[in-house]
Amino acid sequence: MDYSKLALDKHKELKGKITIQPRDVVDTKEKLSTYYSPGVGAVSSYVAEHPKETRDYTWTNNNVAVVSDGSAVLGLGNIGPHGALPVMEGKAMLFKTFADIDAVPIVLNVHTADEIVAVVKALAPSFGGINLEDIAAPLCFEVEERLKNELDIPVMHDDQHGTAIVTLAGLINAAKITGRNLKESKIVMVGAGAAGVAIAKLIHLYAGTNIVAVDSKGIITRDRDGLNKEKQILAEFNNQQQAGSLADAVRNADIFIGVSQAGLLTAEMVKTMAKDPIIFAMANPIPEIMPEEAKAAGAAIVATGRSDFANQVNNSLAFPGVFRGALDHNVTKITDEHKIAAAEAIAALVAEPSTDKIIPGPFDEGIVAAVANVIR
Amino acid sequence: MDYSKLALDKHKELKGKITIQPRDVVDTKEKLSTYYSPGVGAVSSYVAEHPKETRDYTWTNNNVAVVSDGSAVLGLGNIGPHGALPVMEGKAMLFKTFADIDAVPIVLNVHTADEIVAVVKALAPSFGGINLEDIAAPLCFEVEERLKNELDIPVMHDDQHGTAIVTLAGLINAAKITGRNLKESKIVMVGAGAAGVAIAKLIHLYAGTNIVAVDSKGIITRDRDGLNKEKQILAEFNNQQQAGSLADAVRNADIFIGVSQAGLLTAEMVKTMAKDPIIFAMANPIPEIMPEEAKAAGAAIVATGRSDFANQVNNSLAFPGVFRGALDHNVTKITDEHKIAAAEAIAALVAEPSTDKIIPGPFDEGIVAAVANVIR
Repeated sequence: MDYSKLALDKHKELKGKITIQPRDVVDTKEKLSTYYSPGVGAVSSYVAEHPKETRDYTWTNNNVAVVSDGSAVLGLGNIGPHGALPVMEGKAMLFKTFADIDAVPIVLNVHTADEIVAVVKALAPSFGGINLEDIAAPLCFEVEERLKNELDIPVMHDDQHGTAIVTLAGLINAAKITGRNLKESKIVMVGAGAAGVAIAKLIHLYAGTNIVAVDSKGIITRDRDGLNKEKQILAEFNNQQQAGSLADAVRNADIFIGVSQAGLLTAEMVKTMAKDPIIFAMANPIPEIMPEEAKAAGAAIVATGRSDFANQVNNSLAFPGVFRGALDHNVTKITDEHKIAAAEAIAALVAEPSTDKIIPGPFDEGIVAAVANVIR
Repeated sequence: MDYSKLALDKHKELKGKITIQPRDVVDTKEKLSTYYSPGVGAVSSYVAEHPKETRDYTWTNNNVAVVSDGSAVLGLGNIGPHGALPVMEGKAMLFKTFADIDAVPIVLNVHTADEIVAVVKALAPSFGGINLEDIAAPLCFEVEERLKNELDIPVMHDDQHGTAIVTLAGLINAAKITGRNLKESKIVMVGAGAAGVAIAKLIHLYAGTNIVAVDSKGIITRDRDGLNKEKQILAEFNNQQQAGSLADAVRNADIFIGVSQAGLLTAEMVKTMAKDPIIFAMANPIPEIMPEEAKAAGAAIVATGRSDFANQVNNSLAFPGVFRGALDHNVTKITDEHKIAAAEAIAALVAEPSTDKIIPGPFDEGIVAAVANVIR
């Protein structure tokens, strides 16, 4: 189904998907004097002297900024802050719906790492966490790393880690169903942007697997020229330094993971993979291969990013619980261990994994609580 | 009444005075696909191509940022962004309560004009307006002027103009009651910070009155050394270039306006003023002179900033309507003419002004609508 017209109509009707609600009705002079001047002065004085307690007296114990510069919005590319805003508002809706977190969309009209870092650091005292969103690679890596180091509130680039957590969750169950040990599997990872890099890193950390990463120029190996820092890391995951094309990479591979573009994986390529291969074709909105075609070519399990197919790898399974846990448990750094624990928690929610149900659906019960519980 | 303990208790109980509410319940995959990926992609593409229409598809048609660097919070001085946050949240509560505007507290960890301007410009695409708050003078003047010039959304420093609008409103009715023509009155203005400067400028523009401005060094005149740009303007309002102390200034004055500090105006000074003087003693929380004492010394009308006395000069009479009007009528610059029209509209709301009722109370009906109506 094409949601374009429905979405345009519905957005124009609502004129904004979120709104601010006071937590008490201010209808008397006494309340005015308690929540605002003069009463609030005592609160301001107190938290100015005890800044760590600000969260006990303000909404920072439950809020996050959803920050984007609009440089990589969905599959639309660099469409700028205005174009990014509807997505960030949607994300704020999901934060509230799934995790009761107050998320504020902040779209930025600046586009260098120095500027984005400076702006987010400047406004950080307003928030209890920072969810970075739809910032292009490789800019997103530097921005996230610097903010994580320089702020004392949790910072997570969801396009990287939300996707990585849910992918690993699905992979854990897919490996179980097909009788695989991830450590001994050959994984082909196509797409070396924000999501691809984070997925490969997390899987490698989890299983030490041989991962052959492929970008638009072919397989990424140590001796390729002009690799950025992140791709240099990916090259190290390629155990035999196999070189070549995507077709070369997938031959005998156990697992294909794509966050690249529509139609990149052909049925012929699937047929060259190991028996009962696992295919995560997550390009949006059109996957690297359609599930039916992949299955016809021998795939045991197919996952995509789409809600209209089985096994949707949807980062709304991860980010609400990650921030819920971080806010509730005063966690100021989301670590790799947190991400792996979150993936395992999500995988464990599927009581009996099957080829058509390797991960929970977005409205399944208990997801946020299970993830939040391991972010401590 | 001392609200300190009540305010501390109540803030700790609520743990945040505002919250985010989605404008629709997201409980089906269809809604998820309409408000978020993939449907929202069509909305993002559309507004990226038509940025001026962003407000028709997002909450920017109804939201403002309440921005402070915490450099002049209430009467507490430079207590920083954490200390400022409870006040900004309170302001957001009032924005919603009085004008149904979605206001987001943004407290900044930067304190130079260049940095504040850069940060606010960077995040401006997220909002439909910018309410600057509790930024110290003279920094606030430069920050506001640059943002007004460089942004295409309404920007107002409320400590300046909210206070000025409501003061002028009160003055219009006070002059009427005491049979004065403002143009021929001598006004003493004590305090040359954000509010004082804005009040003096607005009254001068409205009535061309002789205004003798006084700061901590005495009367401000042209020949004083080291006057900043704003004080140079105030010096020009001093028609006879009268010099001297506060006591010299108030002698024969018709109107005293104070935004300075507790107890600065003595009963003896009031006795030297013209007959039936008007006293606006707006220092918070303790006025320049207590109303009873001023009345005993001959004051015809006394106004303060406090809710427990008659005639509270409260900028919540102005800012909600100003931004409501600006958002509703696509006004991108709040002009001096807007401010005067707002003051006249507020004054006109008091059907029969009396010495104890020169301005509406904060919960009187129709204030926001009356003010919004003249911001076009």
